[in-house]
Amino acid sequence: MSELKNDLLLQALKGEAVSRPPVWMMRQAGRYLPDYIKLRQKYDFFTRVETPELACEITLQPVDQVGVDAAIIFSDILVIPQAMGMEVQMEEGKGPLLPNVVKTESDIDALITTDTAERLNYVMQALSLTKQELNGRVPLIGFAGAPWTLLCYMVEGKGSKTFDKAKQFCFTQPELAHKLLQKITDVTITYLKAQAKAGANLVQVFDSWSGMLSPADFKIFAQPYLVQIADAVSVDVPVILFPKGSWYALEDLSKTSAAGLGLDWSVTPTLARQLTSNNITLQGNFDPSKLLAPIPQIKKEVKEMIDGFGTRRYVANLGHGILPNVPVDHARAFVDAVKEYGA
Amino acid sequence: MSELKNDLLLQALKGEAVSRPPVWMMRQAGRYLPDYIKLRQKYDFFTRVETPELACEITLQPVDQVGVDAAIIFSDILVIPQAMGMEVQMEEGKGPLLPNVVKTESDIDALITTDTAERLNYVMQALSLTKQELNGRVPLIGFAGAPWTLLCYMVEGKGSKTFDKAKQFCFTQPELAHKLLQKITDVTITYLKAQAKAGANLVQVFDSWSGMLSPADFKIFAQPYLVQIADAVSVDVPVILFPKGSWYALEDLSKTSAAGLGLDWSVTPTLARQLTSNNITLQGNFDPSKLLAPIPQIKKEVKEMIDGFGTRRYVANLGHGILPNVPVDHARAFVDAVKEYGA
Repeated sequence: MSELKNDLLLQALKGEAVSRPPVWMMRQAGRYLPDYIKLRQKYDFFTRVETPELACEITLQPVDQVGVDAAIIFSDILVIPQAMGMEVQMEEGKGPLLPNVVKTESDIDALITTDTAERLNYVMQALSLTKQELNGRVPLIGFAGAPWTLLCYMVEGKGSKTFDKAKQFCFTQPELAHKLLQKITDVTITYLKAQAKAGANLVQVFDSWSGMLSPADFKIFAQPYLVQIADAVSVDVPVILFPKGSWYALEDLSKTSAAGLGLDWSVTPTLARQLTSNNITLQGNFDPSKLLAPIPQIKKEVKEMIDGFGTRRYVANLGHGILPNVPVDHARAFVDAVKEYGA
Repeated sequence: MSELKNDLLLQALKGEAVSRPPVWMMRQAGRYLPDYIKLRQKYDFFTRVETPELACEITLQPVDQVGVDAAIIFSDILVIPQAMGMEVQMEEGKGPLLPNVVKTESDIDALITTDTAERLNYVMQALSLTKQELNGRVPLIGFAGAPWTLLCYMVEGKGSKTFDKAKQFCFTQPELAHKLLQKITDVTITYLKAQAKAGANLVQVFDSWSGMLSPADFKIFAQPYLVQIADAVSVDVPVILFPKGSWYALEDLSKTSAAGLGLDWSVTPTLARQLTSNNITLQGNFDPSKLLAPIPQIKKEVKEMIDGFGTRRYVANLGHGILPNVPVDHARAFVDAVKEYGA
């Protein structure tokens, strides 16, 4: 294993002084990159995810073309429901569809929780290959969906504005919900530990739909499982938790074993630092739509964002995934603005 | 005009002591009520909105059937873009479509800003008729969409997960965005004042998409126009502002001339009271999905919600619109739980 030439991200997660904040972008491997779109025309979604050479190539594109300080493995959070035996369909531009949703206790009992790393061996291969190809240029990020967010898809069967079927399941059958959440948690811990072993230098847990929950319900259905994952996986590699929309949980989560917390753009840097008592590395939180603004404005607002967070214990990122319609030179301007900070 | 027999809502908005908090539900007139669904099968959306007798009948249904403490006129926020000359299509279950979106300055110049009350005379007729039919039973609420939310639809042309076209318009052409927002604001003020004159006892302004904006952008593109509306319309009737997702704006908005602030369920009662220094009436914020929970749980959590907010300067409501799949007896349980509070 070659030593990292650029370990800004790991330094920032440790709270060490850095020459400038590291920068990467959620969903940086994908949709807005012309070279990715070419691959998309040749290979369907799961072929891209399941072929280590393709996943590796896609993972490296933003490192080479946009100059980010970390690679994040190209994959999908729904590989976990797949590994647990559920069918997942992905129609381009339409979002996921899980035709056989979880409804009953026997549906939960039927979910597979063994051999996770073997079942998702293609992810481990993609990580190993990418690690080799990176040759220490930047750290490699692994990831998984949070249990609450995966429950949303496994019960609802598709994306939703409200995920009310998933919530109804939790509110009417909380014992079943917790049984399901625990199963997902166990599998996810195994999966993330295997990712660390395969070469991931750190991992991020995406709780994309946690903001649908009230603060009280977040504490019941999301937080305990995030904490379990952070505790178990932090033994191996640093863990970043990204509970989108759940600004109300920042204080609690800052006291966990997570190394970093991802933020969406609804929270100001000042408030985020207050809520977390400046105790943990914060990551975010540029409005992805703002990358559609003129480049000088992007640069100005990135500078303001870093002024707000400070350079220590901070990872520059978007507040959610990059939009497919962002011009590549705007993405690059975002990255450049972070690199130029203080220069 | 008959005197109100139940003016709990107006008392709460004035900050007066009440025997119990008033209760109503956003979107209470509509989708979850079997009698509404019958009308929907006979008349298309805009026929229901534009026929005063139908709008009145739909408005009264939840007063009669669920026992809420206020009627809210059945209408739609997109009648304003229509009155400004834009085509709005509404396909059942699909959401709105505005085929000719605002793109250029000449598109904005072409928008009609005169004769708003005349163009929306059917709303005024519906209000007058409903007021008469209510015969003082409960107050009548008028409403409008907030300028930012209307801009979203007028520029994007339809619903969106990110409203990135609307945001791109604002970020790249802020002068045009402000020109459009001001036009919408002027028309909305005229419209809400006409609603007050036609019989609305109070009005609510729905900023359904304000939470898409960062705190900084909310201050630029949303807040100034909400403040203008609150200032102008409060002269006639109390104004409730509902900036969904914009918990970060509660402090600022509590210092405006608004009589009340609507809250979604991402904010706890305690924090909402802190942020607003207990200076303004708060309305909300039951998770609409929670109405799918068993009735005893609904009742328990409604009680906890009122315990949190206190009975003074408080209006019990959902944190967003009622879902179409809520059983009527669950909606009734919500209302009953408020009525039983402290009894």
